[in-house]
Amino acid sequence: MNLLNDLQWRYATKRMNGKHVPNEKVMQVIEAARLAPTSSGLQPFKVVMIEDIEIRKKIAPIAMNQKQITECSHLLVFAAWDSYTQERMDSVFDNMEAIRELPKGEMNEFKNSVSKSMQAKSEHEQYHHAARQAYIGFGMAIAAAAELRIDASPMEGFHNDELDVFLGLDKLGLKSVTLLALGYRNEEEDWLLPMKKVRFPLEDFLIEVK
Amino acid sequence: MNLLNDLQWRYATKRMNGKHVPNEKVMQVIEAARLAPTSSGLQPFKVVMIEDIEIRKKIAPIAMNQKQITECSHLLVFAAWDSYTQERMDSVFDNMEAIRELPKGEMNEFKNSVSKSMQAKSEHEQYHHAARQAYIGFGMAIAAAAELRIDASPMEGFHNDELDVFLGLDKLGLKSVTLLALGYRNEEEDWLLPMKKVRFPLEDFLIEVK
Repeated sequence: MNLLNDLQWRYATKRMNGKHVPNEKVMQVIEAARLAPTSSGLQPFKVVMIEDIEIRKKIAPIAMNQKQITECSHLLVFAAWDSYTQERMDSVFDNMEAIRELPKGEMNEFKNSVSKSMQAKSEHEQYHHAARQAYIGFGMAIAAAAELRIDASPMEGFHNDELDVFLGLDKLGLKSVTLLALGYRNEEEDWLLPMKKVRFPLEDFLIEVK
Repeated sequence: MNLLNDLQWRYATKRMNGKHVPNEKVMQVIEAARLAPTSSGLQPFKVVMIEDIEIRKKIAPIAMNQKQITECSHLLVFAAWDSYTQERMDSVFDNMEAIRELPKGEMNEFKNSVSKSMQAKSEHEQYHHAARQAYIGFGMAIAAAAELRIDASPMEGFHNDELDVFLGLDKLGLKSVTLLALGYRNEEEDWLLPMKKVRFPLEDFLIEVK
């Protein structure tokens, strides 16, 4: 099975060699994130792409100077909506009606039901809900990179608020949740490469209810 | 690209036909979730598998009587750790040392650093962090099902606390975060099947920082 082979091939690359990943491949990784399913189709996150090395050099200290920030080819930032505003939900259902060629207002009942359930949550809960959806897309992007044999480093270790200000995400109502560095492994320098993949054995991971 | 084709093929199946999915295929879907990357390799979630129809009938009212609960073949519950206890973190690093054949205690420095950063979070924040990791595995399982041409319904609409009590997850320190029903589409009955997939266009989804 392709996906299982791809997931066995990949690892959280610690050192990259600076080589350039063709832009069309990076776009396929982003496309996998865009196609990821999300709760009620709300798609409450964006992908931010940074290729410019000077910008990445400035991001490095915000991300504990992890070497992949500057050794990668493209840095992706997954950023979730800070809240489910009515305007944002309207944009989702307007888009749905347009793509499905439905009469304007056809989705109103569903929209009102989703809006009501979202607005019953605190702004903090709304953000957490949106962040979880971003992680589905994050997973799809990791799987896509592996299929393309592009190395990828998923990274949570950075100062989210600082990065949001640096990239201007705060002004867009977005909060960065995770990073994905795309590039190619530095086989000589990466201590993690020869290490065995570690997962809980199936008997600890799976609970069968009978 | 396989993954992009698979993601185009899949949709959030609303009606299923009750046909049985071979167990070995369900196990491949679970294996994709098991292989998903997680923060510091902590893997803070489990997959619960329920095939028995009588148990699923009891779950249906906890999940808004969504038809996929009883029309599917296997129901998967993704359940996150309710907190990062020291015991749980010890089990992760013990497993890491065992699989990598490292001397006992070799991972202590990394373990202490991860433990410290987790314990700086409130229990609530710890749970949210764990839930996000579960969503990476959830995404991988959705991608795996699509590759196998098994239909899958991702579902967040259920009473989490009730389900936790019903399945005894609360006693295991787990909190259900999402459901994945696996089965085969009922082509006659599923209103969503003929509808076009809706996503924000790339120009709205991607932010390029230059």
